[in-house]
Amino acid sequence: MDNRFTQYFTENRDRHLNELKQLLQIPSISALSENKKDVIRAAEWIANSLKQAGMDNVKVMPTKGHPVVYGEWLKAEGKPTVLIYGHYDVQPVDPLELWETPPFEPDIRDHKIYARGATDDKGQTFMHIKALEAILHTTGTLPLNFKFCIEGEEEIGSPNLDLFVEENKDLLTADVLVISDTPMLEKGKPAICTGLRGLCGLQIDVKGAVGDLHSGLYGGAVQNPIHALVRILDSMRNQDGQIAVEGFYDRVVPVSEEEQEAFRSLGINEEAIRQELGVPEFFGEKGYSLLERTWVRPTLEINGIYGGFQGEGIKTVLPSEAHAKITCRLVPDQDPDEIVALIRKHIEKHTPPGVTVTTQLFDRGRPFATPIDHPAIQAAGRAYEAVYKAPAAFTRMGGSIPIVETFGRLLQLPVVLMGFGLPNENFHAPNEHFHLENFDKGLLTLCEYWFELERTLEN
Amino acid sequence: MDNRFTQYFTENRDRHLNELKQLLQIPSISALSENKKDVIRAAEWIANSLKQAGMDNVKVMPTKGHPVVYGEWLKAEGKPTVLIYGHYDVQPVDPLELWETPPFEPDIRDHKIYARGATDDKGQTFMHIKALEAILHTTGTLPLNFKFCIEGEEEIGSPNLDLFVEENKDLLTADVLVISDTPMLEKGKPAICTGLRGLCGLQIDVKGAVGDLHSGLYGGAVQNPIHALVRILDSMRNQDGQIAVEGFYDRVVPVSEEEQEAFRSLGINEEAIRQELGVPEFFGEKGYSLLERTWVRPTLEINGIYGGFQGEGIKTVLPSEAHAKITCRLVPDQDPDEIVALIRKHIEKHTPPGVTVTTQLFDRGRPFATPIDHPAIQAAGRAYEAVYKAPAAFTRMGGSIPIVETFGRLLQLPVVLMGFGLPNENFHAPNEHFHLENFDKGLLTLCEYWFELERTLEN
Repeated sequence: MDNRFTQYFTENRDRHLNELKQLLQIPSISALSENKKDVIRAAEWIANSLKQAGMDNVKVMPTKGHPVVYGEWLKAEGKPTVLIYGHYDVQPVDPLELWETPPFEPDIRDHKIYARGATDDKGQTFMHIKALEAILHTTGTLPLNFKFCIEGEEEIGSPNLDLFVEENKDLLTADVLVISDTPMLEKGKPAICTGLRGLCGLQIDVKGAVGDLHSGLYGGAVQNPIHALVRILDSMRNQDGQIAVEGFYDRVVPVSEEEQEAFRSLGINEEAIRQELGVPEFFGEKGYSLLERTWVRPTLEINGIYGGFQGEGIKTVLPSEAHAKITCRLVPDQDPDEIVALIRKHIEKHTPPGVTVTTQLFDRGRPFATPIDHPAIQAAGRAYEAVYKAPAAFTRMGGSIPIVETFGRLLQLPVVLMGFGLPNENFHAPNEHFHLENFDKGLLTLCEYWFELERTLEN
Repeated sequence: MDNRFTQYFTENRDRHLNELKQLLQIPSISALSENKKDVIRAAEWIANSLKQAGMDNVKVMPTKGHPVVYGEWLKAEGKPTVLIYGHYDVQPVDPLELWETPPFEPDIRDHKIYARGATDDKGQTFMHIKALEAILHTTGTLPLNFKFCIEGEEEIGSPNLDLFVEENKDLLTADVLVISDTPMLEKGKPAICTGLRGLCGLQIDVKGAVGDLHSGLYGGAVQNPIHALVRILDSMRNQDGQIAVEGFYDRVVPVSEEEQEAFRSLGINEEAIRQELGVPEFFGEKGYSLLERTWVRPTLEINGIYGGFQGEGIKTVLPSEAHAKITCRLVPDQDPDEIVALIRKHIEKHTPPGVTVTTQLFDRGRPFATPIDHPAIQAAGRAYEAVYKAPAAFTRMGGSIPIVETFGRLLQLPVVLMGFGLPNENFHAPNEHFHLENFDKGLLTLCEYWFELERTLEN
């Protein structure tokens, strides 16, 4: 490791953290239309930061939704090009009352920075910019060519990125894609993720009478949309945690004995995780371990439900509508469009009489897996080990980054998923935070990686 | 009918409607603690109105919750005493956006007055006050003795009225209880209700992990509280609309052939009702007619459900909690406490692994029925017929007025339920209103009834 980088990061640490706080103060919630201006502000902030770091041709590129920020540095003649993907948008913050400090007022305590987006993904995107800034400032050049593609719709499923990538294939052409948006195994144990689950989502809207009714006058004679909805939802999973949608598992590739062994060798302490989550017991598909359930098995989860009276006390209403939002995590070789069609068929079959049901389609992403032995992945392992003094684990992940599959497919790129967040940093939940140990070590790991990758790809 | 009353109501109609509007402007929502002051204001308004009408000993009497307004006129020496019950509290108003005019800005259009409480029950309580005002003003006296007991917690199940009635038995002693809080059959067809369903309610709270989780990271391995909740709720009703809680129907008294025939003779146009409600078909317990389902069969309805993300778009969260509110309508001889115990046992039995479930008890009321041939009820039929020129139907009702059973039991009183609202006046729903034809005819019917009742009870 080049000591100049260590020195640079130490000298600039306060400035870097202050800049990160500025970025985290912007409530760039992509799901809410009321935050549209904030999303734009975050894009512009990222663009400025890229310029200040020394990137060229920086631009905020419009899409049908939120813009993509592009920047490049292509002066390493004859060298391979790395495309860095990240996202500057964040999840909604409710329930707000559970945050110990406000989600958009970044607070450093106990060596962690607390704010929505701290770990997912503003903090990690910021580190990529600062790693290149450090190398450029210290050495005057970069070992490889770089392109940035930082989007603002990851948290709503990247609805416009496919088209953006297709329309900008030449601009985005590269030799390897690097993304830091996946967690480490635990503190001190880095991980490179070689597989992600896909995603598809639906909103189910159940409509009964033209208006809310008095449950005393009409209860028992008119179908209650909430009853209809719970019937439909309950029919989707059986008692053993299996998904009861016909055909759902048809294309699932079984987990190999080797993969199962690799998972076991990680030595996950399930009991410690159970205690941390505060659940009386785990619950999931029978016959599978915790890691299998979350990494290589598909799921169907209700993310939200609402209908009727939700205030204090009671209201004897028979509501006219009820709604639920569900998402599925998909594994190779499930196809999101096919799964959505199966679910819609299932809903149709299980809709009780007396109501009408419609569905709204959300984002979709295909499942994805990369070969462990790709040189770019192996180089990432060495970079982690050099800084963390611990071997990187090769894992899979339950979450979805739909664009990983898109980039892989459209640009024919190997993808390296090297993240610096910890699994308990409250992604998507109140009190999201990012551990500063991984901020500091992550910056060094990235610098290390670019030189290691240059050496590896040379050979 | 004494023409002097007709003349009095005609001359005072504008003043009366303006006064009613004042009362309807007070947002006395008993379910919401933020409206506590408004509830008190409504009680004081009623007390003033009783004084202005000529009642004596008017007082706003505290309870543990909202106060009861009492007033009396006991100068008809040797005559029977009528206790008039009503309520000045109203239901919540959400969804607010569905109101054509604001719920607390009374608006008269198309011969109807629109406001929360217009028909349930401020409008009808107000008419009782104004009927006595008219007789006193016109004749200088009243044909019977009268007591008013107007409460502020009917819409939350009258949690403090039982104790109030017990503690004030002497004050409330009377010969007959009259309540106007039940609907007519349809426009031009008055009805006297001789049976009401009872009520019990529960909130079900399901708790999973200590905080919200990312559905990608933990989905499939941790029980989702919404899934657990829909499983519990779905297990409570079977496909034929029957309640699947063990023992639920054990004490239900079967409907007699005579009663079924009486219901058929009402000639209800089910298709017209279906079209008005805008439902594709009715749905309820197999083997029973619409009237049976809503009048003499017990029900279990989910009044509200909520958990997880409810905003625009999608949030891939695995929420830490989920909630539902349910109420049952009960028929003779079901006991609310027993039914609550059966439901709690059912919940315990059907709770899936991985979550903890707690319940909160809401209001309870016993079911109730009066003999059709009681003289006070027959007199009410004659009063209606004299004004409406149509015979009054003897019906039962699906709703609950828990205090009816309380009064009947504690004060040993016959109860006359003679209402003036129409079934489609949006009780408990947006755009609640009250038809002014029934305001005008109702005032005359009440005057007629007091003289008719005096004659009937004399004999």
